[in-house]
Amino acid sequence: MNKVRIGIVGLGNMGSAHTRSLLAGNVPRLEVTAICDLDPKKFAPFPQLKSFTSSGEMIRSGAIDAILIATPHYFHTTIGIDALKNGLHVLVEKPISVHKADCEKLIAAHTNKKQVFAAMFNQRTDPYYIKIRELVKSGELGEIRRINWIITNWFRTEIYYASSTWRATWGGEGGGVLLNQCPHNLDLFQWMFGLPQVVRSFCRFGQYHKIEVEDDVTAFFEYASGATGVFITSTGEAPGTNRLEITCERGKLIYENDAIQFTRNEIETTKFSRTTKESFSAPQTWDIKIPVNGHGGQHNEILKNFTEAILDGKPLIAPASEGIHSVELANAILQSTFDQKAITLPINSAAYRKRLEARIAKSKFKKKTVKAVVTDFSKSFK
Amino acid sequence: MNKVRIGIVGLGNMGSAHTRSLLAGNVPRLEVTAICDLDPKKFAPFPQLKSFTSSGEMIRSGAIDAILIATPHYFHTTIGIDALKNGLHVLVEKPISVHKADCEKLIAAHTNKKQVFAAMFNQRTDPYYIKIRELVKSGELGEIRRINWIITNWFRTEIYYASSTWRATWGGEGGGVLLNQCPHNLDLFQWMFGLPQVVRSFCRFGQYHKIEVEDDVTAFFEYASGATGVFITSTGEAPGTNRLEITCERGKLIYENDAIQFTRNEIETTKFSRTTKESFSAPQTWDIKIPVNGHGGQHNEILKNFTEAILDGKPLIAPASEGIHSVELANAILQSTFDQKAITLPINSAAYRKRLEARIAKSKFKKKTVKAVVTDFSKSFK
Repeated sequence: MNKVRIGIVGLGNMGSAHTRSLLAGNVPRLEVTAICDLDPKKFAPFPQLKSFTSSGEMIRSGAIDAILIATPHYFHTTIGIDALKNGLHVLVEKPISVHKADCEKLIAAHTNKKQVFAAMFNQRTDPYYIKIRELVKSGELGEIRRINWIITNWFRTEIYYASSTWRATWGGEGGGVLLNQCPHNLDLFQWMFGLPQVVRSFCRFGQYHKIEVEDDVTAFFEYASGATGVFITSTGEAPGTNRLEITCERGKLIYENDAIQFTRNEIETTKFSRTTKESFSAPQTWDIKIPVNGHGGQHNEILKNFTEAILDGKPLIAPASEGIHSVELANAILQSTFDQKAITLPINSAAYRKRLEARIAKSKFKKKTVKAVVTDFSKSFK
Repeated sequence: MNKVRIGIVGLGNMGSAHTRSLLAGNVPRLEVTAICDLDPKKFAPFPQLKSFTSSGEMIRSGAIDAILIATPHYFHTTIGIDALKNGLHVLVEKPISVHKADCEKLIAAHTNKKQVFAAMFNQRTDPYYIKIRELVKSGELGEIRRINWIITNWFRTEIYYASSTWRATWGGEGGGVLLNQCPHNLDLFQWMFGLPQVVRSFCRFGQYHKIEVEDDVTAFFEYASGATGVFITSTGEAPGTNRLEITCERGKLIYENDAIQFTRNEIETTKFSRTTKESFSAPQTWDIKIPVNGHGGQHNEILKNFTEAILDGKPLIAPASEGIHSVELANAILQSTFDQKAITLPINSAAYRKRLEARIAKSKFKKKTVKAVVTDFSKSFK
């Protein structure tokens, strides 16, 4: 095999963008040969491609070796399992599933390890996050004391939510900003720092938009190490902020405005505190700017890595099995607000699913959909 | 009367600094004539001043018109009441008392309004905070949505805590960073934004130092308006951060590194969100740098204002009666962690006092004191 034939299911904002990018030849050896959507009107821009209104038919068509799943999130699990059982390589958009129990089912279906199973965590290709992760993992920062991520640059307008019935409903998405925009940041959080032990949160549902799910989140994390974290996100703030502050024994690292600034203590904080004879003093510091160029290949780099994993056996940047962590974190944050208490990880996946099903059952939310203009979707890739 | 004779009680770090500053003639028409401390060794650097080991004697000596109280916090209440009852003008260091019930007692003793009663909230003289408050109060920012204050530049070394027996104990201070360092920031918070309605917190006791009180705080505030706030402080981080981010309908204001940056939305966020036809768009913005010069007169400006209030009837920058708000906020933050639940303001002052007394009663903490070097106390005025 010297190329991979891929089918794309779900021609919404993301699926259409991926289809256009592959047709433009952006990813060598990855050829889009089929598309699938419940709405056949979505096929019109792509007359050269085989089209299906049933994912099951596309999966069994023989026209594809791999599938990219870009449907509403609940279908990631069902279509993913169907594709894995039928021998396809699978690349699933984030989140890999809506809740932890679905993640477990989906990951369990990946029995043949010759099939490549990856997740679209494109922000793992960003050299800024790669560099920060290196600094954390290498021990260069010393022990981590506090992580403060304000990631509020996910502004969405009222019509964004109003433009489709499934969006921002418990039944259609299983959550709001935590399930749709923030899986990237939750994945990066656990990829850089691991999962916390205890999660407390204050989520607000429909604070800024006419929706039933959360569009404003403040979460507090405790790690087994004693480190803490604050994670703040919202789709209601403009202009938003993306500022990650890491307090560590070696000082403080700040990522903001496309720059990594590391203020490095010559002596580690605790050692200094315990040995100095002075009441009012602090370690001497170095001001370090860590140079990083650009934001990496993003979606196309994940598509390229997926192709190379299939054809050349390369290791994956984002194995789908790791996608369970960001879902568990999102679920724990929601559960803490549902139950008004601290949640200890790992969560009980069956219990969380029941809690979510109860929300869906008692939802009285009816959305009117209106047609939105999508002038430039790339604005949303922050 | 054309000058004010002041006595200073408590010759610790602050009281000694105030005494030296007044002896240097930094505040016109305010003459330090007496000092008071339990430890007569503290008088040695000031042989020219009348000295007392009893505050009651100094208050009744006829040598002073006014008193500056710079003792450990619990004595602010008792000495303050004694001084007010004996007709003195009173300037009390922050916090005005340790807990709300003591604040109420102290403020109630101020029956003769011809006596000036002020609090040492010197950071209210800082032009940066004055400007931010103006922008908030004038409506220039539009409705406030979220306030995020990371104020962790209160690093203290182990020996700072070890250098006196009363410091950082429930019995001696009634708290840690919230009662000693942060009263400034809690006062500014309520001065700029008012008091929240609900407080949740996660305080950690002795996280970074061998102390029994809190040296690490994450608090979450809810306002009646729907606004939220996050307040993070610590004495265990070096280098610390002082970053205040205000998200508002008119955009976002950030105060950090001696600069105020206002990113102003041409159209207010909610109006934009509800009227645009585009899913992925945001208001056009202006990048505004708001010029501010220097950090103001600080302690000496409060001393000058106190003198002018007495001699010229000028309005106070920081009336002591306003000092109850920062104490109530500090108490609510501690109570939320004590009780592991959300606390609604106003708090029950008698109930909080009982809770604190119980902490003192069951404290088994014994401190060994060691002698610290104080090379440059001014480093601590952040």
